[in-house]
Amino acid sequence: MPEGEVKLLGLWPSPFVIRARIALNLKSVDYEFVEEKFGTKSELLLRSNPVHKKIPVLIHDNQPICESLVIVQYIDQVWTSGPSILPSDPYDRAIARFWAAYIDDKWWPSMVGLGKGLGQDAEATMIDEARRGLELLEEAFIKCSKGKAFFGGERIGYLDIALGAFLGWLGAKEKMADVKLLDEEKTPHLAQWAQRFKSDPAVKGLIPETDRLIEFAKMVQAWLKAKAAAPPTQ
Amino acid sequence: MPEGEVKLLGLWPSPFVIRARIALNLKSVDYEFVEEKFGTKSELLLRSNPVHKKIPVLIHDNQPICESLVIVQYIDQVWTSGPSILPSDPYDRAIARFWAAYIDDKWWPSMVGLGKGLGQDAEATMIDEARRGLELLEEAFIKCSKGKAFFGGERIGYLDIALGAFLGWLGAKEKMADVKLLDEEKTPHLAQWAQRFKSDPAVKGLIPETDRLIEFAKMVQAWLKAKAAAPPTQ
Repeated sequence: MPEGEVKLLGLWPSPFVIRARIALNLKSVDYEFVEEKFGTKSELLLRSNPVHKKIPVLIHDNQPICESLVIVQYIDQVWTSGPSILPSDPYDRAIARFWAAYIDDKWWPSMVGLGKGLGQDAEATMIDEARRGLELLEEAFIKCSKGKAFFGGERIGYLDIALGAFLGWLGAKEKMADVKLLDEEKTPHLAQWAQRFKSDPAVKGLIPETDRLIEFAKMVQAWLKAKAAAPPTQ
Repeated sequence: MPEGEVKLLGLWPSPFVIRARIALNLKSVDYEFVEEKFGTKSELLLRSNPVHKKIPVLIHDNQPICESLVIVQYIDQVWTSGPSILPSDPYDRAIARFWAAYIDDKWWPSMVGLGKGLGQDAEATMIDEARRGLELLEEAFIKCSKGKAFFGGERIGYLDIALGAFLGWLGAKEKMADVKLLDEEKTPHLAQWAQRFKSDPAVKGLIPETDRLIEFAKMVQAWLKAKAAAPPTQ
């Protein structure tokens, strides 16, 4: 086991933080979860991620590593005694990276505004795009899993983590927008995968419950509104 | 040497395509450069990258790989006989990935509109952000290079490729906006690195000349204007 203390700076609702936590669990790494306070940034966070000032930050042996997918790949390379997270085959690895980038650059941004009351047309567009994205990911699942339980094969891998960390928010968005996105008919493989993923020992307890996320989303919206209404402090 | 024909679908001015070409050169891979025609998408491109329909696409042994940094990492993993592109140390690797993501997500998007006549205020903001980004990258260079010639040490590595592929466009943007961004005083290490990078055997001939890029940029703007003015075809 590599030496050095392991800390993770995060917040429980963040899917990006959840990615790092799942990767650490898969590798059976003992770590301290340092919960940031919503609305403020700790000294440690500002010092550890001066460029983006964002969670998650993994601090291993006093060295900070930022950006969730960079963290997951770091964990995979450092803790080699646990199961591999990235596929070993170069082509499979490229495909996993491609879809992980798609999730971050296209799929999640397309639906992040859902249920925020941005108007009927905007909601309809976001619902369409979220569904189209899930249909693409259904096809990707069929190709990547090759008949097995996960994108990564027999076990949870890189792409499972990249997408699966959003399952809590996907459920919350569905309830907030009163719509079914992960459709049992159109995306049956993905719907079943989601159940398997959430009940995996490395994931259990990490995907927040729908209602807790909705409560959090409401709190954030109220906070943003109050902030926008407040006079500037300088 | 791994088997299978290697093709790269691209366009000469694209920095993302240039990344793939530098990586292939570093590994001494023989490949066919299939030049796409600007403004159209070939059947092969649409079939090879149905999600984004974008260049570059590397086709190795009939398998398409998309997204420039995914391609560079694929090349590094497959052609192991050449020099390593990614740092071998996990922390150095994470830092290289962090800055490569910064370049794609923050730095380049912040200046892509420069010189397009978006107004004085917008230009000033973009110039500020581009300069701030380069100052951060100057610091990153000092840390990553550890006194050596490149981000990657003695040789060109992942972060050199990620940033260096933009050097042609950086020069073109400077001329278009009549401004100096890569400042010899504020970013002296980076300014010297840029000269070394451009004259490296793996890079030579790939970074287009400033005036050719400016001509291309003008052609694209005229094309976009004509397209916006034309009645829809359906």
